[in-house]
Formats: sequence, structure tokens, C-alpha cells
Amino acid sequence: MSELVLRAEKLDAADELAPLRSRFVLDDVVYLDGNSLGALPANVPGRVEDVVRRQWGELRIRSWDESGWWTAPERIGDRIAPLVGAAPGQIVVGDSTSVNVFKALVAAVRMAGEERDEILVDATTFPTDGYIAESAARLTGRRLRALDPAEVPSALGDRTAAVLLNHVDYRGGRLHDLPALTAAIHAAGALAVWDLCHSAGALPVGLDEHGVDLAVGCTYKYLNGGPGSPAYLYVRRDLQGRFDSPLPGWNSHAEPFGMSPSYAPAPGALRGRVGTPDILSMLALEAALDVWDDVSVSSVRAKSLALTDFFLECVTAYTEPGRVVCVTPEPHGERGSQIALRCPDAGEVMKRLIARGVVGDFRHPDILRFGFTPLYVSFADAERAARVLGEVLG
Amino acid sequence: MSELVLRAEKLDAADELAPLRSRFVLDDVVYLDGNSLGALPANVPGRVEDVVRRQWGELRIRSWDESGWWTAPERIGDRIAPLVGAAPGQIVVGDSTSVNVFKALVAAVRMAGEERDEILVDATTFPTDGYIAESAARLTGRRLRALDPAEVPSALGDRTAAVLLNHVDYRGGRLHDLPALTAAIHAAGALAVWDLCHSAGALPVGLDEHGVDLAVGCTYKYLNGGPGSPAYLYVRRDLQGRFDSPLPGWNSHAEPFGMSPSYAPAPGALRGRVGTPDILSMLALEAALDVWDDVSVSSVRAKSLALTDFFLECVTAYTEPGRVVCVTPEPHGERGSQIALRCPDAGEVMKRLIARGVVGDFRHPDILRFGFTPLYVSFADAERAARVLGEVLG
Repeated sequence: MSELVLRAEKLDAADELAPLRSRFVLDDVVYLDGNSLGALPANVPGRVEDVVRRQWGELRIRSWDESGWWTAPERIGDRIAPLVGAAPGQIVVGDSTSVNVFKALVAAVRMAGEERDEILVDATTFPTDGYIAESAARLTGRRLRALDPAEVPSALGDRTAAVLLNHVDYRGGRLHDLPALTAAIHAAGALAVWDLCHSAGALPVGLDEHGVDLAVGCTYKYLNGGPGSPAYLYVRRDLQGRFDSPLPGWNSHAEPFGMSPSYAPAPGALRGRVGTPDILSMLALEAALDVWDDVSVSSVRAKSLALTDFFLECVTAYTEPGRVVCVTPEPHGERGSQIALRCPDAGEVMKRLIARGVVGDFRHPDILRFGFTPLYVSFADAERAARVLGEVLG
Repeated sequence: MSELVLRAEKLDAADELAPLRSRFVLDDVVYLDGNSLGALPANVPGRVEDVVRRQWGELRIRSWDESGWWTAPERIGDRIAPLVGAAPGQIVVGDSTSVNVFKALVAAVRMAGEERDEILVDATTFPTDGYIAESAARLTGRRLRALDPAEVPSALGDRTAAVLLNHVDYRGGRLHDLPALTAAIHAAGALAVWDLCHSAGALPVGLDEHGVDLAVGCTYKYLNGGPGSPAYLYVRRDLQGRFDSPLPGWNSHAEPFGMSPSYAPAPGALRGRVGTPDILSMLALEAALDVWDDVSVSSVRAKSLALTDFFLECVTAYTEPGRVVCVTPEPHGERGSQIALRCPDAGEVMKRLIARGVVGDFRHPDILRFGFTPLYVSFADAERAARVLGEVLG
């Protein structure tokens, strides 16, 4: 047995998070795609069945009150809050990430005022953020500039209204310096909007601590909410009174059942709601968040870094030098919870990996992406994934 | 036994739709709130369990292809299409009704061109449409005028860009003349956007036949998709190439997995998609639509009118004259699938009705609302509801 297999055994034996794996439905596949779709938490199927059969099927319309459907967006927001370093009352769940980027960016531009006419957006971001930013700019009469996050500090100025950045790059897995960039944006008098899709649930975010203005994120990656589970929107408490939504649906009205023809926004985070929440997806997410009840994000982060370090060590040991190139930064302070390896035949390689029971994903044109969810990925998984990769690369 | 009870028995015995009731999970409550939340179709729980346990839990990320998750928005749109008189390829499912109103209205205004600077909106509509219309007007630099649908023809002119109307009024249950109003809007060179929340699944809509431009609707009322199930967007085929979405998320990109930094819209109805679809809610809806496989909307409409006629007859028979006033129009051509009765103590009356097993709803300040879903409401239900109402009103 190789030294790396023994190392993996020892690391797993010492891992205090190892028992959490039993909270998920998993098989003998090495699942390194939790940064795309998190695995199924074991308590979710029973909860969903109760929501469908009893809450919908028996209580029907009464469930809007009696089963807490109506208040789910803010209640579940408060469950996500500690995972991203937010005090309660600042997050609502609902809509897709794209829709929340739109709400956040238009609201940020309006807060910045008329004289600031430029939006900066991370050019390396997941494309939807750029597309939506372009629409927000067009509809609010602002100019959009796409640039590398490293260029943001020098691009900031009196004209900057808002900056939309990804905390962790979806492709290469680079972790951006949220505290420093937020401080630089604030120093220029602009607002910072962060997309947390690839960081929430994998590493500490510290929204309140670092004074982030607005943030959005999905819940189906490291939060394991299920396919297309609703996204969330964070609006810092002291900005909520100025949050002027471009999607002022009736769910965000101060008196939604008053059915008033004129709009009056609700106080607090509720102002970020739009239409009727999709209850099935939302309550599946609520159940999925139970997994986190006794888990600290800092312990998750420590294991994530240990896992990705160990995986890289195994890749180096099992793979011919130069066959793959790691594009994820080595320094811990710049690394998310994934490893991206560049190789020219990445598409084919990933197919062979999946056929061998190692599930990552392929990102056009040449990236093998492996996501490490510390809640259920073991060091043995990391060793096996690297070993199979070495065999597949041959 | 009263004559009305016997009449109800005969009507139920002759009702060809009566067997459909067994396709739903129902108890001995008279459920007249299907125009708010449709009852649970009996096949939905099993389907949802399969989606959660097998598609998510076992296949995980593979389900985006293998379980048809990725194509669900347009596939389910094509299931809704025949219910609203649309040929395939013109409807996508996703997001809330409010979000779809925003997409439809901004897109309509853009199609109308710069020189048309006014949006007309139904002042009697469900409030969210008015709030969203106001936002659409503000963001596109148009003027919004709220008016009674009856005033629309005389208000139309060279400046009218688009008109947003409800097919059936959520409160009083008035059915508006979609063919005539659409024709008038077109004669003025403007675009017609219809909200079908309270008509789809209850009566023929004829989107294609009447040349409607854009339409939206929810799926949790007469389509029984479940609490907060995703809404849909119809864009008439010949307008799709000009559909310029204000929410151009990555799901509407011509090559969503190309991850291109520049946006290029997909052809067809796909262009109305935004972000990742909420699969649990969406596939519950897909199962719910199975109920319609052998059901014609015209037979549903015929039963709906017979039910509401009979209910009104029973209310007249069982209730002291003047105690309640019907605000839903009597003529069939102006009536949706609900009956709204005005009485000063409506809030209290509805509580007593619900306590007696007759579930309708109360709409501020003085409306008792009874929705008739012909798929599962019987004439015996209508008689019992009216009888209990008479007793409760005392």
C-alpha cells in the first residue's frame, strides 16, 4: 500500500468532520462536483415528503400560515446568515442568483446616486453576472467596465457607482481578497456587491465584519439545497432603508395582503422579496441547512485547505510532470475549495474519470474542475481521485 | 332532502369530468380555494420522491442531462401550451409571475420602439402587476397610466407602447374580453401583454388565435403545480427574434456552456429563461400537468360555468336577500371561474365557513371569494358551500 494511501487513512482518522459524511446520501463514487450540485442530505427526502403530502396535500392553503410558508424566505435567510458572517435580518432567500444580481446591482447603483455613472464587473466572473450587469447598466443609464479583479483598485474613482465581484472564481478557483477590495471600493465612495456562489459554505466570508454592502449567492453548491434551489440576497442592515428594488413584487410590500394599488416597501430584508416563493425547493433547502447546526465554517475551511493540499500532493505524485497544470493558486489565502487543472484533452479525460467513478466536471475549453466539499469528501477520496486521474492520463 | 340537493346529485351523475376528482388528494372539505392554491394531484408525491431520492440523490449532477433537468423549462412550457391555446415552442417555465411580468413588459416596450413612451396597466389588477409595471416604466423611461380595462380602448394612441391586462380579475372574477382588447391594442400599434393567472386551466385563452404578443401566468392555481410553483412566459413565435430580455441570464444564452463573456441570446422561447431552474418545484409541476392529458379546456369551461351558475342559484335560495351581493358578472362571457360575494363582515364570515369545512378566501376589505376548479369540485360541493354560507350568515 502506498505511503499516500496510509497518509489518507491517518488524515481521515484524525478528521473531526468525518462523521458528517453520514448526513448525506452517498455511494462509492468519489463526488468532487459538490461545487456544482451538492449531494443529497439524508434528512431532505422525508422533509420534502411531509411538505408535499401533509402541508400541501392536507393543509393546503392553510400552510401559508400554519406551516410557515409565508415567512420561509427570511427564516431560511437567517439560517444562511451565520455561514456567511451576517447577523440575522439581512438575508432573504428566493429567485435565482441571476435575478438577485440584478436586484443587488440596480439597487446599489441607485444608492450611489446619479453622479456616479460607472459599474465595474469582474471580467473573469461566471458569465451570467456580466450579462446581468450589462442589463443593469443599460437600464440605469450607466457605463459598464469589465476588468480583472486585480485591476479594480486602480480603476476606482469618483465615477464608480458599484463593483460586482465573485468571491471565488468559478473556473480557476481563485479566492479574491474580499476585505481589501471592499475597503478599496468604499474608499472610492462606491458600493461593493459580492457573489458568494463558490465561497458560501466552503470558507468564512465575514459579510458584516468587512462591511460588504450587498451580496448574492446560490444554495445548491456547498449549501446542498438541491438542483436549482433558490438563491439569496444580503442587504446590509443600514442600507436596507435605501434599498430601492427594480423588482418590487407584492411579496416585498409593507402590507402584502392590503392589496394596495400603490407600492410601499416592507422594512428590512423583506424588501428583497419579489413574488410567491417556490415552497418545495425552499423547504428542501431549509432541511439541507440542518446539516450545519453543529458545524463551524472555520473547521470546514481548515479541512478544505488540507484536502486540496493533499490532492495536489497526490496529483504531483501520480501524474507525469507537465501533463496537467494547476491553475488554482497555491497560497491558501488565494484558494477557494476547488482545484482546477489544465490539460489539453480535459473533456475526454473527465469522461474517463467519471466512467471510473471519479466525478468532477469539465469547463470549456481545457479545465478539469474538482470541488472539495469538506462535509462529505474524505482524504481517501482525494487520494483515489488523484490516483485514478494518473491512471486515466496514462 | 331539498330540491337543490337532488339537483346537485343529478348534475354530478351527468358530469363527465366527475371521475377526475380521484386524480387529486382530497378529503371531505369543500375546497373552493383552488384559485389560490390548487389541490395536490395524486401522482405528484411519488414523482417528487423520485426526483429527490434517485435523480438528485443517486444520479446527482448527471441528472442535468440524463433526467432532463436542463430542458425542463421549455418541455414543461410545451405541456402548458395547449391549455392556453399556444402552439409548441413559445412558452418557458421559470421564475415567479412578478419576474415574468417584468421580462414581458420591458421586452414589449423595447419592441414598440423609442417613440412610444406610455405603458397602460389595468388599475384593478393584482397589485404586483402594477408595481412591476411601474418599475418597468421607470427603468425604460416610459410613463405609466393605470386605468380600468374598459377605458383602455379610448386611452390607446400613438404613444402607447404596451398594455398589461389581467384576463380574469383576481378579486371580483370579471373575465375581460381578450380578443377585442388585443385587437384594439394592435390597431393602435401597441403590444398586448396578458396575465393569465386566473384564467389558465379554467377557460380557453386562445393566445395564438387572438394574436396575443406576450403573456405570463402562474401555475399553482388551476394548474395545481404546488405552492409557489414556477410561472411561465409566452412570447409569440414571430416576436421571439426581437425579444430583448432585461434579465439575460446564462440560461438564455445561445451557448450556455460556452461560458462566453459576451451575451448572445438563444433562439426561440429559451430566450425567456434566466438562471438555473428550480428543479424540485418544476418537476412537481410537470407531474401535476399529467392530470390534463385527456381533458379538454372547453369541457372544463362548460362545467365551470354550470358550477358557478348553480352556486349562485343556491346562494340565492339559502341566503336572506341583500345579505351578500355578488360582484362577479352574471353574463357567462364576463365571468371567470370564481364567485366573489360582498358582505360587510366577510373576514369573520370566512373564518366561520372554514371552521365548518368550506374553504374559500377573504379579500380585503369585504369580499368572500370562492374558486371553482372543475377538475375536482362537484355540484354537491357547490350546494353544500352555499347551504353552509346561508347558515353561517344566519
